[in-house]
Amino acid sequence: MPDMQKRADTRRIPISKVGVKDITYPVVIMDKNRSLQHTVARVNMYVDLPHHFKGTHMSRFVEILNRYREQIALDKLEIILEEMKSRLGSDNAHLEIQFPYFIDKRAPVSGATSLMEYTCEFSASMTDTLDFVLGVKVPLTSLCPCSKELSRFGAHNQRSVMTVRVRYKDFIWIEDLVELIEQCGSSPLYALLKREDEKFVTEQAYENPRFVEDMVREAYSRLAAVENITWFSVETENFESIHNHSAYASVGLDRRG
Amino acid sequence: MPDMQKRADTRRIPISKVGVKDITYPVVIMDKNRSLQHTVARVNMYVDLPHHFKGTHMSRFVEILNRYREQIALDKLEIILEEMKSRLGSDNAHLEIQFPYFIDKRAPVSGATSLMEYTCEFSASMTDTLDFVLGVKVPLTSLCPCSKELSRFGAHNQRSVMTVRVRYKDFIWIEDLVELIEQCGSSPLYALLKREDEKFVTEQAYENPRFVEDMVREAYSRLAAVENITWFSVETENFESIHNHSAYASVGLDRRG
Amino acid sequence: MPDMQKRADTRRIPISKVGVKDITYPVVIMDKNRSLQHTVARVNMYVDLPHHFKGTHMSRFVEILNRYREQIALDKLEIILEEMKSRLGSDNAHLEIQFPYFIDKRAPVSGATSLMEYTCEFSASMTDTLDFVLGVKVPLTSLCPCSKELSRFGAHNQRSVMTVRVRYKDFIWIEDLVELIEQCGSSPLYALLKREDEKFVTEQAYENPRFVEDMVREAYSRLAAVENITWFSVETENFESIHNHSAYASVGLDRRG
Amino acid sequence: MPDMQKRADTRRIPISKVGVKDITYPVVIMDKNRSLQHTVARVNMYVDLPHHFKGTHMSRFVEILNRYREQIALDKLEIILEEMKSRLGSDNAHLEIQFPYFIDKRAPVSGATSLMEYTCEFSASMTDTLDFVLGVKVPLTSLCPCSKELSRFGAHNQRSVMTVRVRYKDFIWIEDLVELIEQCGSSPLYALLKREDEKFVTEQAYENPRFVEDMVREAYSRLAAVENITWFSVETENFESIHNHSAYASVGLDRRG
Repeated sequence: MPDMQKRADTRRIPISKVGVKDITYPVVIMDKNRSLQHTVARVNMYVDLPHHFKGTHMSRFVEILNRYREQIALDKLEIILEEMKSRLGSDNAHLEIQFPYFIDKRAPVSGATSLMEYTCEFSASMTDTLDFVLGVKVPLTSLCPCSKELSRFGAHNQRSVMTVRVRYKDFIWIEDLVELIEQCGSSPLYALLKREDEKFVTEQAYENPRFVEDMVREAYSRLAAVENITWFSVETENFESIHNHSAYASVGLDRRG
Repeated sequence: MPDMQKRADTRRIPISKVGVKDITYPVVIMDKNRSLQHTVARVNMYVDLPHHFKGTHMSRFVEILNRYREQIALDKLEIILEEMKSRLGSDNAHLEIQFPYFIDKRAPVSGATSLMEYTCEFSASMTDTLDFVLGVKVPLTSLCPCSKELSRFGAHNQRSVMTVRVRYKDFIWIEDLVELIEQCGSSPLYALLKREDEKFVTEQAYENPRFVEDMVREAYSRLAAVENITWFSVETENFESIHNHSAYASVGLDRRG
Repeated sequence: MPDMQKRADTRRIPISKVGVKDITYPVVIMDKNRSLQHTVARVNMYVDLPHHFKGTHMSRFVEILNRYREQIALDKLEIILEEMKSRLGSDNAHLEIQFPYFIDKRAPVSGATSLMEYTCEFSASMTDTLDFVLGVKVPLTSLCPCSKELSRFGAHNQRSVMTVRVRYKDFIWIEDLVELIEQCGSSPLYALLKREDEKFVTEQAYENPRFVEDMVREAYSRLAAVENITWFSVETENFESIHNHSAYASVGLDRRG
Repeated sequence: MPDMQKRADTRRIPISKVGVKDITYPVVIMDKNRSLQHTVARVNMYVDLPHHFKGTHMSRFVEILNRYREQIALDKLEIILEEMKSRLGSDNAHLEIQFPYFIDKRAPVSGATSLMEYTCEFSASMTDTLDFVLGVKVPLTSLCPCSKELSRFGAHNQRSVMTVRVRYKDFIWIEDLVELIEQCGSSPLYALLKREDEKFVTEQAYENPRFVEDMVREAYSRLAAVENITWFSVETENFESIHNHSAYASVGLDRRG
């Protein structure tokens, strides 16, 4: 059968990224506590296409994903990207996967345990060396300092989502990054709270009011204090309980030199 | 050209609904205050298909929508549905449109005005007589009574969405239905609040704590008190500020006899 | 600590459904071929609330989910629903879970295998006896018979999604329901196709043109022929390649008597 | 009342972007043919926050939006951004709006007219001078050259979406950018096609097969040929009719020098 993709293209236009997008696939992720965690990912896989080829071979991306899906560990990403480059005849390769990740969490007073979900992203690119970005979305409670100060009692509060992406030198566990981020709001969230826990988190949030600006500054301070982290970006979105829109703030730091 | 859709089908299977789904179209809606409101709708249009026809004529739906899009008033719905029935040779017709609807709203203390968006739905069906359901999604603040009672200070609160659908005898304005629903939470939401307003709504919510159960019961009481309303359903979803999931409740009443 | 939810409510309004919505949780599903499949579900859990209680105990839903999440098998649903009823003091209980489910699939000519994802739903309710609905969304290729007949060459085709929900007497595997549905379009979809497979599925679709009406009728015929199925609904949406909206059709049958 | 936002912050962390996100608001856009088009936008408005201020004044963003919403013309963007900078005391300002935009379109043979929807984005930033990016998403038909060549008859085709963003020197109408992009697939899409049109577009697509790679290269060639365009990015996603995932490609050019 003819291989149309291999044919020459004469337009002299290289393509930066070409590949498959939004494949839903079961994957197995390395987990700090339980060693392996089964989850389901949305996967994008791209390579560059030199100007002289007409097309890429889309089915090879799926073959590679299929082979490695039970080993989505950070130490395997280079091997996967290398295989993408060699199988597709490309100079660089990109792998993006987004997945719900679950962490056992204890309620603060009762100690009742349940699983909290955090949406995580691995974004890996390679020409010669690996460029890896770890991303995690952490839901938080935020309580408005202005509302607290102005009002005789109460203060509006709401669910927020803080999205943090980091580049680092030495390996960082998702669990450790989540723990750092959960310090940055007025209170963490839980899947399961008993009455005594609800009292605790309500009071904790009230005693710890934070603007969206405070939250990203808090994250900035804590991330910048980790020498191992060479680059980060922080975004926070507060789903305001008194408005039908969000408050938003972002900061970032690059010290890759 | 052959008209394949008109051909006979011998499988003897009538089709309940066939048509076009998710057309995005600009429409003009009748408005209580300003007479006409331009917005953008997602439209579904279906008819039934008798068992002896192979297919329906999809392009006719779009022609009808095109003709009536500047007159999406409730008194035009019967005409539109009749035209769907006659142009498509069907016994019944369905028109569903969902659109953002804007209402001028004054902040409670400063009186500053802005536009609040409410997602509305018209769901109209007709065999012999019109069956019309008006739906509206109203965002609200909800403040947890349990959290307030347990805690020494503060109380968790969050954005909620109450979805109400009604059938009625005599015409009801979207504005009036929204006003009724905005009484059912701990406080309404606003697009624009100055400092004095923020103090007001924070205190109002604190003095007016409501479970998701209280909210749907409040809506039930108020809707059942309107004799003109012959049927309703109420759903409320609270995007909990201390959890990563929602609290939900629903009630309904049918007194169409 | 006071238990506010248990307090009396005097408004005399029972609530049909109250509970937790959109919890993302890892679950383990029984699988026809490999016995157990790890996936991630969106879960809703509701009970009714008698008129004399002020509120339900939301944390108990999460406790129950937590206990049973590794055994989401159809023979466990009654036990889960019974526990919901008894722990929450309710007359009926509802459990809805939606999850991506993966089936190994062989390409039609090369035999290359990959995993196809199908979004599945379990919707279970119980007052005295279990009412269970199995739902599955199956992507298909649809090729337009009218376009084929009118045109000198080619025919427009596109991705479709057929959503089938069934009630039955004796257990049905998701795999078997998917297989039945995959006969109803112009061709099934695959995650991985080699060139010889692509030729095969292209020709298969061209030789097997189907309107959205044909697809739901085909599904109707095949589902009605399974005596074990007592009720079903079928919806198909074609994401038209020549339009920016969908063609849609639905049929259903109830022979529960 | 105290103005908490104005207070000093001592952490010495400036914030790159802070403001309001996802406000749904009715806007009026300048239109090539009819002069004004009413539509509904999702709006984000951000400014930077110097390190010495604790917070920004969120309500001012909404006031500004409210004042200018009937004049979202490109020649007003500088005024809006200047007002954001001065009202919020910031060095730079960002305005992002996304909205459905409608263009009258004639079917290719019958000449039947209907409205096609294109999702557009204005992304405007200003420190000293305006940086403006116009974005538009155009749905297209794509027909696979490989499938056509391999198969005895037919070829798989599907809906694609091409997203193009441009920076330019002299004003460009959305309508003109859309027209250029609609040349880049196998065929344009229409909201309304009669039988003779369906024959035409089916045959046009079959005679004009294009890989996702061909589509982005075609767009690259056409955009690079417009001297007025100083920067562009092109992304195409094909919602494959034979797969449950997308094929994707992207290219870009920067000659701002």
